[in-house]
Amino acid sequence: MTERTSPSESALVEPALTGSTRPDTIRADTIRIRAGFELHFELTQPTPMLFVVEPTERPGQRILAARKRVSPDLPLSETSSFIDIYGNTVWRIQAPAGRLEVAHDLLMEVSAHKDPVIGHLPKTPIEALPGNLLHYLLPSRYVDSDLISSEAWRLFGDIYGGWAQAQAVCDHLQATLQYGAGSTSSTSAREAYQSGYAVCRDFAHAGVAFCRALNLPARYVCGYLPDIDVPPDFRPMDFHAWFEVWLDGAWRTFDARHNFPRVGRILIATGRDASDVAFNTAFGSSVLAHMKVWADETEATELPPLSEGFPQTPTVEGLRLSEAWVDRPRLT
Amino acid sequence: MTERTSPSESALVEPALTGSTRPDTIRADTIRIRAGFELHFELTQPTPMLFVVEPTERPGQRILAARKRVSPDLPLSETSSFIDIYGNTVWRIQAPAGRLEVAHDLLMEVSAHKDPVIGHLPKTPIEALPGNLLHYLLPSRYVDSDLISSEAWRLFGDIYGGWAQAQAVCDHLQATLQYGAGSTSSTSAREAYQSGYAVCRDFAHAGVAFCRALNLPARYVCGYLPDIDVPPDFRPMDFHAWFEVWLDGAWRTFDARHNFPRVGRILIATGRDASDVAFNTAFGSSVLAHMKVWADETEATELPPLSEGFPQTPTVEGLRLSEAWVDRPRLT
Amino acid sequence: MTERTSPSESALVEPALTGSTRPDTIRADTIRIRAGFELHFELTQPTPMLFVVEPTERPGQRILAARKRVSPDLPLSETSSFIDIYGNTVWRIQAPAGRLEVAHDLLMEVSAHKDPVIGHLPKTPIEALPGNLLHYLLPSRYVDSDLISSEAWRLFGDIYGGWAQAQAVCDHLQATLQYGAGSTSSTSAREAYQSGYAVCRDFAHAGVAFCRALNLPARYVCGYLPDIDVPPDFRPMDFHAWFEVWLDGAWRTFDARHNFPRVGRILIATGRDASDVAFNTAFGSSVLAHMKVWADETEATELPPLSEGFPQTPTVEGLRLSEAWVDRPRLT
Amino acid sequence: MTERTSPSESALVEPALTGSTRPDTIRADTIRIRAGFELHFELTQPTPMLFVVEPTERPGQRILAARKRVSPDLPLSETSSFIDIYGNTVWRIQAPAGRLEVAHDLLMEVSAHKDPVIGHLPKTPIEALPGNLLHYLLPSRYVDSDLISSEAWRLFGDIYGGWAQAQAVCDHLQATLQYGAGSTSSTSAREAYQSGYAVCRDFAHAGVAFCRALNLPARYVCGYLPDIDVPPDFRPMDFHAWFEVWLDGAWRTFDARHNFPRVGRILIATGRDASDVAFNTAFGSSVLAHMKVWADETEATELPPLSEGFPQTPTVEGLRLSEAWVDRPRLT
Repeated sequence: MTERTSPSESALVEPALTGSTRPDTIRADTIRIRAGFELHFELTQPTPMLFVVEPTERPGQRILAARKRVSPDLPLSETSSFIDIYGNTVWRIQAPAGRLEVAHDLLMEVSAHKDPVIGHLPKTPIEALPGNLLHYLLPSRYVDSDLISSEAWRLFGDIYGGWAQAQAVCDHLQATLQYGAGSTSSTSAREAYQSGYAVCRDFAHAGVAFCRALNLPARYVCGYLPDIDVPPDFRPMDFHAWFEVWLDGAWRTFDARHNFPRVGRILIATGRDASDVAFNTAFGSSVLAHMKVWADETEATELPPLSEGFPQTPTVEGLRLSEAWVDRPRLT
Repeated sequence: MTERTSPSESALVEPALTGSTRPDTIRADTIRIRAGFELHFELTQPTPMLFVVEPTERPGQRILAARKRVSPDLPLSETSSFIDIYGNTVWRIQAPAGRLEVAHDLLMEVSAHKDPVIGHLPKTPIEALPGNLLHYLLPSRYVDSDLISSEAWRLFGDIYGGWAQAQAVCDHLQATLQYGAGSTSSTSAREAYQSGYAVCRDFAHAGVAFCRALNLPARYVCGYLPDIDVPPDFRPMDFHAWFEVWLDGAWRTFDARHNFPRVGRILIATGRDASDVAFNTAFGSSVLAHMKVWADETEATELPPLSEGFPQTPTVEGLRLSEAWVDRPRLT
Repeated sequence: MTERTSPSESALVEPALTGSTRPDTIRADTIRIRAGFELHFELTQPTPMLFVVEPTERPGQRILAARKRVSPDLPLSETSSFIDIYGNTVWRIQAPAGRLEVAHDLLMEVSAHKDPVIGHLPKTPIEALPGNLLHYLLPSRYVDSDLISSEAWRLFGDIYGGWAQAQAVCDHLQATLQYGAGSTSSTSAREAYQSGYAVCRDFAHAGVAFCRALNLPARYVCGYLPDIDVPPDFRPMDFHAWFEVWLDGAWRTFDARHNFPRVGRILIATGRDASDVAFNTAFGSSVLAHMKVWADETEATELPPLSEGFPQTPTVEGLRLSEAWVDRPRLT
Repeated sequence: MTERTSPSESALVEPALTGSTRPDTIRADTIRIRAGFELHFELTQPTPMLFVVEPTERPGQRILAARKRVSPDLPLSETSSFIDIYGNTVWRIQAPAGRLEVAHDLLMEVSAHKDPVIGHLPKTPIEALPGNLLHYLLPSRYVDSDLISSEAWRLFGDIYGGWAQAQAVCDHLQATLQYGAGSTSSTSAREAYQSGYAVCRDFAHAGVAFCRALNLPARYVCGYLPDIDVPPDFRPMDFHAWFEVWLDGAWRTFDARHNFPRVGRILIATGRDASDVAFNTAFGSSVLAHMKVWADETEATELPPLSEGFPQTPTVEGLRLSEAWVDRPRLT
């Protein structure tokens, strides 16, 4: 990760370099991130696989370049993509037995600003919510909000204001959950909450669950989160999960795992919970033999040649997935 | 319920009475059902409520007449409907504190034939499924198919054929689950399965869960099921739940609760599980003080005047719902 | 039509007690309308037909009762409905050769208030419109907005404000178009505008066309419009068409045909133009031999028995439709 | 363009071993295409613009790499994308006054095989079509199928079979339309047909119009078409338009402009007609000062560095667009 000063400082000292016809200060509003992953699976039989890994353009993020590699080089009939009911792009790969390697390399432009904090935003009454948001109030596979409803109202029922309630949920999870793997791919929000241990996925599920119990529409988000303006983390990078709450007419970012505003999020997909947007779903037994994820700020204006390989970043090796029909590697 | 002979017999003895210009035998293909419900809720505070109770026209069912009553007579701004992501019609009611009465009365025409049995239908390989069906393979709130995957493959993995596998699931559930309430509105498929007791909702969840674990797209269905060609049942009638499996390009009906072909189903809605298509969702504490459901074959060609009231049918009184934020009365 | 005072008058004598459950005050906010139609077609061959005639519940309208009659009494396999891409309910009927009769009878509750007029509403800049509204800026079959763009900007370009522009469009159409049939089912907005004659469909198309040309998202609406608080009209009643413009976050009602606020609209469907929401589309040659439409205020609380027949209302007889593959009877 | 033998020839020397993971045989089934565009607009005022230019993964095409350049370097808040009602990805750009440059560069993998010809495919009866396809039978802005219905049935009514009818339409258009610009961005199918002159857009519109008139669901397609296995064309390359017809459960490719099977199509988007999927829609006056499109077979496995620039290909300069509010540069 490169050293960088804060956005406002950098505007003073870093002249815009890249062919812009707009004032220098525009450059100060965005940064570029190289993000991507390399996954190796060992498959004992032909296996249909889904990957939810492709960001789209949204206000706040722009794809400058993208490339993808699948090995072996599958026939075109065995790879495709579709848009799911949440609007996410889903890759389908009909993988043969043996080793499957999938890599994705992105050059993204994202906002240089931290996650907004708008603490006064009110809660929208249920009766004023658009109909298509109501299902974000219902429980889902890993968000057993119906089972923590009493707890939610006991803890947060007296807090006035939508943002304030959602923030109080995050603060509470920070204070009561210890970061660490105790969960599996089938752990629900309540189970993680009661265990006292959580990884990012669990933090997000628990945040979503408490918010839904409080009648705040909430959804699970997966994406990349580079280490910018934070102390270096020497563990292998991984995909990240956080959540969004519908407040005052828009989805707002909350991250109970880190619980302070971050720079550089790349949103990949959203859904009701990790079941909808697992970065990988394998319909069969699989071993994730190798996993490498990168998300780093860069000054580059294009992706380097493939011959240079992917970024040097710590990797995860030999992660044996469960033998369940749906294998979902853990997010950190 | 009226006495009736079998469809083939009735074709011989019941001349068509209703202005048809087609041969008499057409009448033998359909029957009319009067179906509906009357629900009284006691609400301690203004409560947003959703009702998923409105059938639509589909191949096999036609709405001849419908009427609705909501009391108190709410302002138009506090009642509306929308189409959810599954295509179901959802009523929204912003109910004031006090007693809320909602009634719906339908005259439906449905097929006179029993649920089809097409035992040779094959399983569609995952890679050949349309993308928008893949989420019917994933676990959902009450369908923890990921947790019974090993059991599913142990029990049914050797069975060849899609219909045969789904039917074997139903047979197994019939043989191992005893009808009876042991579950609550938060019971999952696996929990009900392990308890040994199930009501229709649990039978449907368990059927869906095993099918998804076997890579058969499956969805939960709620509707009306009249007692036709079956011994009379003296318990209060209720909404019914069953499930559908995608086989050979279409959704196919399975009913693990009854497990033999029935006549007269009226499909109200479909979804991933009961969370999506609860007939009532109250965002607040509510008491379902009175519940009456009817679904009976009729010779009538229109709904009787309101002054005649609703059908005489046993009712459920005084069912106290949980105080969770989402109250879902039980289906039988 | 029953006598009734205007909403503003009634407000003087019936104090509005919002939140009250007293019937009299509630009645002041809503009225009931009996609406429906009876259509007879002569078909020389089996003909697939679509009907877009079914209102749904929306803020401002509630269905109290509905019944439908199709003769001959078609097999269930030859009638169904689906939801189109605009959210409208579409009936499909596979009609045999010969006479087809379709009737629909509705008891609706709608607002007792006139169409709102909110003259200060601003135009939303294109860049701030939700993506899914942008196609309401593009031309469509009968809305050749691209061809009247110069005219639109010449006439209305100097008007400031979204509502003001849309209202100016209506005023201009009122002033320059004479009510009367000069158009056919294939007449476009520009063609009708240039001809100087228009029926309601043409008024709506022209209004939509000018608004789109002015970068105001606009859509075509079909529905029922009873004669309330207006002089009686002795011509046969028909379906009506008007249009909506997206202003300040919601669709707003405009009616260039009548061009003053009306009471009692029942919205059936919306689309880009009459091609999307023709009340009837016949895929084959058809003669609309008989047409009766009703939409009248009523004190009744339920639909009368079928034996009483439909309301006494003037009918259209012997309308020969074009022989084009898509026959669309004219709206008035 | 590189030399290559035809697929049938290559099949002789490179035995196809389906299911093999050996690179050489896999290569025989696919080719790689570098495709993209560079557009310069001159804008006299800030202008909202839409671009429908991004292919997605589908059976038959895979994106290996993609990069995008927009100059000036707009703030992230002024660029985004959304999925339209047809499933296409649409870029939104809020362009400032002055010069806007937009470039896209893709490395695609597509089938090495020619467009399939399956002449015996039957026509699906209207009553058997899925509901969501019916709107592909209706007329749309540039597809005035209602106006050429008689002509359609006169010319093609006696032809038996769905594919055969669609092919006869293409053959007829080939025989009667001369390639050449006589049309503008507002020319409809019938107008082009009657003029005797057509560019690819007109050929596609006319094909769609005749097919819809014949009750064949048909949609307009835009994309790239490289010159493979055809004589070189020295005119500047452009986007291409063709059409698809729904036959036997799937969309099938027809191209009335070329009217023989081609290799290397890259499908960008589909819609009812060019109004839905114009590659560029400008809400304001614009001049397309420079246009360069490329689509060439390549052996490369990654996109070359940006410093090498885009492919050498003839360009279009100084195309003045109409001053209508929607400017749509012509497809060839």
